[in-house]
Amino acid sequence: MDRRSFLRTSALGGSAAAATSLAAPAIAQGNRTLTMVTTWGRGLAGVHDAAQHVADSITAMSDGSLTVDLKAAGELVGAFEVFDAVTAGQADMYHGADYYFTGQHPGYQFFTAAPFGMTPQELVNWYYHGDGHALHDELGQIFGLKSFLAGNTGPQAGGWFSKEINSPDDFNGLKFRMPGLGGKALGKLGASVQNIPGSEVYQALASGAIDGTEWIGPWADEKAGFQEITKTYYTSGFHEPGAGLSVAVNRDVFESLSPAHQKIIEVASAEAHQWNLAQFMNNNGAALQRLQAGGVKTLEFPDSVWDAFGQAASDTLDEFMSDDLFANIRGSVVSSMKASSGWITKSEGAYRTQRDRVLG
Amino acid sequence: MDRRSFLRTSALGGSAAAATSLAAPAIAQGNRTLTMVTTWGRGLAGVHDAAQHVADSITAMSDGSLTVDLKAAGELVGAFEVFDAVTAGQADMYHGADYYFTGQHPGYQFFTAAPFGMTPQELVNWYYHGDGHALHDELGQIFGLKSFLAGNTGPQAGGWFSKEINSPDDFNGLKFRMPGLGGKALGKLGASVQNIPGSEVYQALASGAIDGTEWIGPWADEKAGFQEITKTYYTSGFHEPGAGLSVAVNRDVFESLSPAHQKIIEVASAEAHQWNLAQFMNNNGAALQRLQAGGVKTLEFPDSVWDAFGQAASDTLDEFMSDDLFANIRGSVVSSMKASSGWITKSEGAYRTQRDRVLG
Repeated sequence: MDRRSFLRTSALGGSAAAATSLAAPAIAQGNRTLTMVTTWGRGLAGVHDAAQHVADSITAMSDGSLTVDLKAAGELVGAFEVFDAVTAGQADMYHGADYYFTGQHPGYQFFTAAPFGMTPQELVNWYYHGDGHALHDELGQIFGLKSFLAGNTGPQAGGWFSKEINSPDDFNGLKFRMPGLGGKALGKLGASVQNIPGSEVYQALASGAIDGTEWIGPWADEKAGFQEITKTYYTSGFHEPGAGLSVAVNRDVFESLSPAHQKIIEVASAEAHQWNLAQFMNNNGAALQRLQAGGVKTLEFPDSVWDAFGQAASDTLDEFMSDDLFANIRGSVVSSMKASSGWITKSEGAYRTQRDRVLG
Repeated sequence: MDRRSFLRTSALGGSAAAATSLAAPAIAQGNRTLTMVTTWGRGLAGVHDAAQHVADSITAMSDGSLTVDLKAAGELVGAFEVFDAVTAGQADMYHGADYYFTGQHPGYQFFTAAPFGMTPQELVNWYYHGDGHALHDELGQIFGLKSFLAGNTGPQAGGWFSKEINSPDDFNGLKFRMPGLGGKALGKLGASVQNIPGSEVYQALASGAIDGTEWIGPWADEKAGFQEITKTYYTSGFHEPGAGLSVAVNRDVFESLSPAHQKIIEVASAEAHQWNLAQFMNNNGAALQRLQAGGVKTLEFPDSVWDAFGQAASDTLDEFMSDDLFANIRGSVVSSMKASSGWITKSEGAYRTQRDRVLG
């Protein structure tokens, strides 16, 4: 694969803005446009917002000398084609959820979310002050990418169910929508896991074609309207305890940029992680209050179900352990997560429990 | 107060770098140096790091066209003089903890930490997606400042005690070091609150001059060496559940900058909040493991003590309610915190409890 020749093609192909700027040489000198493809439909709340936030920050901080032209899913390439498009130089960068690319390498799972994996705070601890970013970079080098964390949906909800779950046996034969490794783990409990396109989930739940579905969290779930069908909502889930989103830049493109432009991409991406996570967490908080006011019953799975989730998640991840880099990343995640969690639980966790008890 | 004339003085006074760059006009064109004063001694772990991180990001992203020259506490002005120095235009910006400036306005308390207030995630939810930043700006306008959140120590530990605390009565007559509103609240429980300079706390605890002290968290506490004196460590505290750090730029200086330079300051500050919080949380996790391995006993205050903390914190904040802006900010904090906390507890909180139970 000759990425440099692709890159040259891309520089020509993506140069509508560059051509325009030729008419104004004083401004255009050194100006450059990067095409960003995304895994999100234009306007998709939260996730598209994160991509647009990164693009706008880069353009604004560089005073337009590095302008990011965002092409949402389907506008240049399809959602799941963005990885190959950037690797090949057809686009300069993507914004997406890296676990869509576990077919390219299973290690990408950990940079979005793994079942029984990291919360958002644990993820950034590991990413910016542990081995996280270096391991992301090691993965990226295989494919000619330079990767950065650049968004987060926060912990995803356990989901909407047509009946309450009182033991692991209740998953036996349950028709449940859950994509990815979480769904694979749920299959080990006997669930009939359905991979239904997002646009068809509401109808499937309403018609009884499925007995339940996870989606994202209260904000997005309320928009999807699941509360119109069932009032049984499990707020905490094991499958995606903090789904990180990423930017990846074609490595040749990245290396051709000035150090200042490289730094702008790095900082804009990191800042988008915090901004987007806060967006989801803030909107989820308000949406949960509305859902509860509307009669939705929030529940937690019992311990026996969590035990079964834990075993199933571990068994699912074990299946990839023959890959050395996957094993390295998993080991690094588990060790960092354990250290982070000890303090988070004993400080913030204990504090919030007591504060909310006292304030009522 | 004529800030513009101060500004002119400052532009001359702070121009060592600008003078140098006159020798290289092609590069120097439009280059500018901003002097950043801080409330931290040079090299103070975590907090000075946050200031340096912001300064370096701004300089790097602007390719040196906006160079930040960091003057640590005492290098240009003293730690607690930075607010007035920037208001007066003697320096261009500061990095510090805004609750040092409650003498200027009590509302600044909420942009670092208030007793029984927000955790870091609740703070960014409110700051970036609620009314937080707008209220910070409203405060800043009074003093000719443009303020941004730019660091966080995470939740601060309850502290080190020479004896266990089993009821609120145990605070009666206890000689305890705790600055700020937390200390004021503790005084309502009968504690003899000591405001001892940081450099003297270790000796005071070792000699028995005080019965206990809070400091920051495991990382900084371990550096201070309190584990050499007592093994009784309360990890969760009510007084600073997530201490935000801020950048404030002289408003005339800020308004004289290009939109790109303004955006660079805004994004660099926000990114530093996440980077610094992750630094503290990551290092606290590792330090807590070492402290525990070294025989430190981690404890939680009983419910009766938390009840007393809650009442004392509320009474303390009530004393400032005659100020309308303080009351507005407090109301906004309480309402946003309540919505955020509901979701955080039911998602991330419940998940981490179950995950850590299952993984052991």
